[in-house]
Amino acid sequence: MRILILNCRGYSIYFRLFDWSTRTVLARGDVDRIELGDSCITMEVPGHDPYHLESDCPTFGAGVALIISALTHPLEGPLQRVEQITAVGHRVAHGGEQFSASIPIDGEVISAVRSFEELAPLHIPANLAGIEGALEVLPDIPHVAVFDSAFHQTMPLHAYLYPLPWEWYEKHGVRRYGFHGASHCYAARRGAALLERKPAQCNLVTIHIGNGLSLCAVEGGRSIDTSMGLTPLEGTMMGTRCGSIDPGIPPFIMQEEQLTARDMERILNQRSGATGITGMKLERPAVLERAINGDERCLMAIDMQAYSIKKHIGGYIAALGRVDALVFSTASGEGEWIVREKALAGMEIFGIRLDRERNRAARSVDREERISADGSPVAVYVIPTEEEMVYAEEVAAVMNGTGLMTCP
Amino acid sequence: MRILILNCRGYSIYFRLFDWSTRTVLARGDVDRIELGDSCITMEVPGHDPYHLESDCPTFGAGVALIISALTHPLEGPLQRVEQITAVGHRVAHGGEQFSASIPIDGEVISAVRSFEELAPLHIPANLAGIEGALEVLPDIPHVAVFDSAFHQTMPLHAYLYPLPWEWYEKHGVRRYGFHGASHCYAARRGAALLERKPAQCNLVTIHIGNGLSLCAVEGGRSIDTSMGLTPLEGTMMGTRCGSIDPGIPPFIMQEEQLTARDMERILNQRSGATGITGMKLERPAVLERAINGDERCLMAIDMQAYSIKKHIGGYIAALGRVDALVFSTASGEGEWIVREKALAGMEIFGIRLDRERNRAARSVDREERISADGSPVAVYVIPTEEEMVYAEEVAAVMNGTGLMTCP
Repeated sequence: MRILILNCRGYSIYFRLFDWSTRTVLARGDVDRIELGDSCITMEVPGHDPYHLESDCPTFGAGVALIISALTHPLEGPLQRVEQITAVGHRVAHGGEQFSASIPIDGEVISAVRSFEELAPLHIPANLAGIEGALEVLPDIPHVAVFDSAFHQTMPLHAYLYPLPWEWYEKHGVRRYGFHGASHCYAARRGAALLERKPAQCNLVTIHIGNGLSLCAVEGGRSIDTSMGLTPLEGTMMGTRCGSIDPGIPPFIMQEEQLTARDMERILNQRSGATGITGMKLERPAVLERAINGDERCLMAIDMQAYSIKKHIGGYIAALGRVDALVFSTASGEGEWIVREKALAGMEIFGIRLDRERNRAARSVDREERISADGSPVAVYVIPTEEEMVYAEEVAAVMNGTGLMTCP
Repeated sequence: MRILILNCRGYSIYFRLFDWSTRTVLARGDVDRIELGDSCITMEVPGHDPYHLESDCPTFGAGVALIISALTHPLEGPLQRVEQITAVGHRVAHGGEQFSASIPIDGEVISAVRSFEELAPLHIPANLAGIEGALEVLPDIPHVAVFDSAFHQTMPLHAYLYPLPWEWYEKHGVRRYGFHGASHCYAARRGAALLERKPAQCNLVTIHIGNGLSLCAVEGGRSIDTSMGLTPLEGTMMGTRCGSIDPGIPPFIMQEEQLTARDMERILNQRSGATGITGMKLERPAVLERAINGDERCLMAIDMQAYSIKKHIGGYIAALGRVDALVFSTASGEGEWIVREKALAGMEIFGIRLDRERNRAARSVDREERISADGSPVAVYVIPTEEEMVYAEEVAAVMNGTGLMTCP
């Protein structure tokens, strides 16, 4: 079984092709600058030189076509024919209340996903464009939607309900859904494996760090709380997103500055977080590097974020009642040590003792590492994010007739 | 020194007259239904029968005049002449960034307080009406403003800044201020006294429960974090206020339901919290009683609130690094045990062990009680709220030339 995973966001498609019988990666890469002009594809195939091609992609469909032609390239591609792909898995950021599991994609699923656009305005349009583009290019292959929110459908009522007018829940589906489900699920599985226990025997706090940042309280393999909510805006401070703030602030500023709801939404999503504090739109590694080098505003942003992570960890340990390990998962490891060092400072009361040198040395790009001190009652791990692997597992499960995202 | 404390909110004035040389209460009471018609005053003077008089108060000024005439009533009043009042202290809900201490009231202070109206729309109008009414009736006596936010001015930057566009902080003063400062200050003093230590030697989490609900992390007598923010809307779920929610929700609902910013503000302040979940505008004791008797929606509301308190406590213990005691302060004790029991369940990892029977028996109306189990590493206390006593201390300090609200 060969599974192609497509993760469409912004103006890019990240892709990965797995041979699922051996769980090996046949190819990985991305198409960048879709719809913007000067598009290009980059692909890595084990045993081959990196493949790079500039080719204009005015649509996500063209981006998917470019991926297929690279995968079936006579010299550089790992496939001979497109029919060798068994199924395509699509990452979808929001499943509303409707999707508590991965599901084969049809017209109804697409309409439902479209109805969630307001809930994840940064993600759903790209997800949909990718799905529709891929259906056009690969019409005869099953496509599966893997939802970021599905893993969190095990949350209890007191964790997912908001203290808002009840009719907003009934009429508009206003509740906590949570995101980064695949990443938290994977982190929980790896955390259990590193503890050499079954997931059902572990209580974990998993921390996903990327452009978005979220935490999850995992009790016996099931998500019981997570920091993102109805939208990916809630929780800790992120790169451009504010995370949780006083809900009295948006109406106050809207009146003071004569802003519409849509203006406010855009500012909270795109001009807040570290960008709001530093006044610069820097990638996360740059913010970390500048903070480490003493830039005042970048350090302020990192202090704020670390403090927010610290409080979330404390809150989730209270919710869990016992914690066996913290699992930090991230794609770009360089510089993340400063956040972990600040977030976990003075947490000995919880049994969390960091090994300063191990933490500073951990790069988390290519291997899993324990950064807690020997004898620390709570283990702390850093693992590379392998979301695509979880997406592929989901697709395989759907093809085999199951498909509930769980941490078995 | 005789100090009159006025606490104006909604359509009521709560008042208390202290003889500060002996720290005794000479009179306490309230005027109700100001501006609404059928106004009345109730007053208790030690050694006298309760005093009650119906008298129409179309304005807060009329309400203050009614209080003065009761206090100087030839038979029932504790004063012979109004000149026996040395100073009047006014509770003011919001001091913005401008007021980090209590201050004598003049025209400039009034203008400044008026500029905070948008930040605390439920409180500031009543506070101001009370101040202006009292100045009219008692023009020759010093009036002092005691701000709810002053105690929290010791918060570090990473706790008070929001990850929002920096110019909102500079231009509009958007930051965490916190409220219930006098109550948290008092709870911290009492917590230290009950531990038989100096405040500087104690780390405490104080929990103020009333119509509003907030928590405070107190390190060595100083507030280092609190759950309310720019406005009294942030933090835990309250009676009619939502507390912290996904900031993506208001813009989403405003677009779906065609609501203005002001509509949204009103709903989040007045139709959310327990009222949103139960669909009923019940006083807190009624919600508690119904929850204890098994009403499904009231129980749901209490579960949500207790869970939110639990997570805040965990987060603040993480921020403090060590905690010596939790101090619950509340005005109406009956039924509160259910919230404490749920909030503190399974917190043994933090060294918090509740004594179930002591907690259920604690009424917290007239005496301070320890409800933690014998030998619990963290003590848990329930104390009656004595905000007015803290206000009076502040007024005395201002009259003596000091006046920074601290927990000495």
